[in-house]
Amino acid sequence: MNTPEAFMEEAIRLACDNTKGTRGGPFGAIVVKDGRVVGQGVNEVTSANDPTAHAEVQAIRDACRNLGTFQLTDCDVYTSCEPCPMCLGALYWARVRSVYYGFDRDDAAVAGFDDSLLYEEVAKPIEGRRLPMARLAPDRGAPNPFELWARSEHKTEY
Amino acid sequence: MNTPEAFMEEAIRLACDNTKGTRGGPFGAIVVKDGRVVGQGVNEVTSANDPTAHAEVQAIRDACRNLGTFQLTDCDVYTSCEPCPMCLGALYWARVRSVYYGFDRDDAAVAGFDDSLLYEEVAKPIEGRRLPMARLAPDRGAPNPFELWARSEHKTEY
Repeated sequence: MNTPEAFMEEAIRLACDNTKGTRGGPFGAIVVKDGRVVGQGVNEVTSANDPTAHAEVQAIRDACRNLGTFQLTDCDVYTSCEPCPMCLGALYWARVRSVYYGFDRDDAAVAGFDDSLLYEEVAKPIEGRRLPMARLAPDRGAPNPFELWARSEHKTEY
Repeated sequence: MNTPEAFMEEAIRLACDNTKGTRGGPFGAIVVKDGRVVGQGVNEVTSANDPTAHAEVQAIRDACRNLGTFQLTDCDVYTSCEPCPMCLGALYWARVRSVYYGFDRDDAAVAGFDDSLLYEEVAKPIEGRRLPMARLAPDRGAPNPFELWARSEHKTEY
């Protein structure tokens, strides 16, 4: 039963189950390594008071905790719905191998979720976005964390 | 001392301090409401084994925990560096009022961080991305979490 289709069914089952309680929205995701589920997550935004607690983010965190790593190379993610830009970013940073999704951003939009809008916003230049955003450039003489980082002997690169 | 410039200095101070230990990368962020710091975060990716533990995400989580909410309307975020797409998505989902950043994605790129690449990737159509991604569309008769959600009586909209 460790076919891509079976893993997708499992992700969607998690999403469906999550609509029965009060944890959060209708989304589920699992992380698979070597044919085995190594992490899973559901949307817990409203119950955990964490707007970043989307299913994919929770599944990534769970898998990293279980595997004791901050990189999920050689892992595939099955998610009930196409990841939003936040989750897509998280999947890149986690260095996952591939992503399979069931429903898509249009299905999410019909259900009232902003994923499609977010893709438009992220692609815009900063000054064209709905979210007001401005640079407060540090003084030339101000400490530069990137320079300190370059000289740091403790650092773990990622 | 609750000027935008002072809050930015504080975010950059957090970023600089974070290069001294082994918590993670050279990034810091704070969340401000009514002139008061209500949350803060630094990059903890490598120490927390959490690839989503960027400074902005940690600051959002901290502020939400402190305020007991999943939405940060009326909050401004000061971050030492322009948010990556993951963090930008998180800032939208948190519904923050505005974002100020110090260094930008080019500064991050020079220091070896992929933010700029990630912006390019997120804006691409799915089939053009480096991260392999495919739809596994559920059968027509399969349970649909969005339909269950629409009918759910427990749900907290967000």
